[in-house]
Amino acid sequence: MTPLATEYIPNLSYDSVIFGFSGEKLKILVLEYHNLKTHALPGGFIKKDENLDDAVKRGLMERTGLEEIYLEQFHTFGSMDRYSPQVMRRIMEEQGEEVTSDHWLLGRFITVGYYALINYENVTPTPDELSDSIDWYDYDSLPELMMDHNDIVSKALEHLRTHLDQKLLSMNLLPEKFTMKDLQQLYEAILGEKLNRANFQRKMLALDILERHDKLYSGGSHKAPYLYSFKMIS
Amino acid sequence: MTPLATEYIPNLSYDSVIFGFSGEKLKILVLEYHNLKTHALPGGFIKKDENLDDAVKRGLMERTGLEEIYLEQFHTFGSMDRYSPQVMRRIMEEQGEEVTSDHWLLGRFITVGYYALINYENVTPTPDELSDSIDWYDYDSLPELMMDHNDIVSKALEHLRTHLDQKLLSMNLLPEKFTMKDLQQLYEAILGEKLNRANFQRKMLALDILERHDKLYSGGSHKAPYLYSFKMIS
Repeated sequence: MTPLATEYIPNLSYDSVIFGFSGEKLKILVLEYHNLKTHALPGGFIKKDENLDDAVKRGLMERTGLEEIYLEQFHTFGSMDRYSPQVMRRIMEEQGEEVTSDHWLLGRFITVGYYALINYENVTPTPDELSDSIDWYDYDSLPELMMDHNDIVSKALEHLRTHLDQKLLSMNLLPEKFTMKDLQQLYEAILGEKLNRANFQRKMLALDILERHDKLYSGGSHKAPYLYSFKMIS
Repeated sequence: MTPLATEYIPNLSYDSVIFGFSGEKLKILVLEYHNLKTHALPGGFIKKDENLDDAVKRGLMERTGLEEIYLEQFHTFGSMDRYSPQVMRRIMEEQGEEVTSDHWLLGRFITVGYYALINYENVTPTPDELSDSIDWYDYDSLPELMMDHNDIVSKALEHLRTHLDQKLLSMNLLPEKFTMKDLQQLYEAILGEKLNRANFQRKMLALDILERHDKLYSGGSHKAPYLYSFKMIS
């Protein structure tokens, strides 16, 4: 069912970039409309009397099945270049809807971008009724997304990279206790480059966000690494 | 004249926080509606076929007379808490308008926040026809602003403080060549705290954004300071 004009704010939408990580690679959650061969970010609309943040949480839950995710707003995209009513028309027609030329979904949309960073092994996304499938794609081999969605992903990643040190504490990407190597792999996946081990350790310890615990004894003969956790923010 | 419903996107506005600095204090540009004793940030609406960024530049020019300012988008405010049609009704009635209860300006507005940082000695803001005056206020003694505008200022300053090192290069707050002391005063005004001179100098030089020039000879007997400029970004 197409969202009703009477329920939603016109000309305004949101799109969410859900980054996934599970120890090695950075992935992104993408919806697919099979018959249209179209890929898209999960997005949606804001009800007339709904807080923007609540709309994004609700919509993400409805479209992907993901709940209780910490989402961060990063940018609002308002260029006329992103106006492309023909894409929305095809999606609606594929649903068997009759689409009049003044349909509110064919209007111009300014979209608010949000992102999240989650451990993709902990969640099972499920597609909604509009899209046919939902999948994790490697960031390195992302398909062409509809409208300006690839640009939205780039801008989200740029924001995440700039704020990585502050953001990691609020995101549950690592087990409660982890080694310096685990943390370095996470940074490398997000930054897209290999880091020097000694420099990385020095920088992380200088940030004063880590608490050191006992060593991880594996029974092997090699040197056991220390375990760390994030310090609680008061 | 009240903006016409047919020309603008409903339910969406922008507000701009213009920070001013001229060697010592951090100030903010505020509009006042005298009869209503109401203070507000300069804001406005987006035309149906206008790029968001262009709308903000146009609106700021119309409302304050300021042109060619580099504005940075920092956050979109979408809480229902900010819905306050009575404020807008009073402003319109003060203009002698007849205000019907379904007037589009009495609707709920989500607002996109932008900020700029300028040298306030270089500009002469002029008020528009809706507001009676426009003035620079010290950040330390800002009046109570309408709706959630004080929160918008706080969030803008938080964003500016977090990104200060990257932002300064794009903003013309200092003369082309300046001393380390000039730069430190700018940082202190924005951060709202005194900084240690030696630490500040060490940090700034480590950022590798400054180019050192000849010393500033004043003819006095005290030691002449070096002059610096920002390195061009390639």
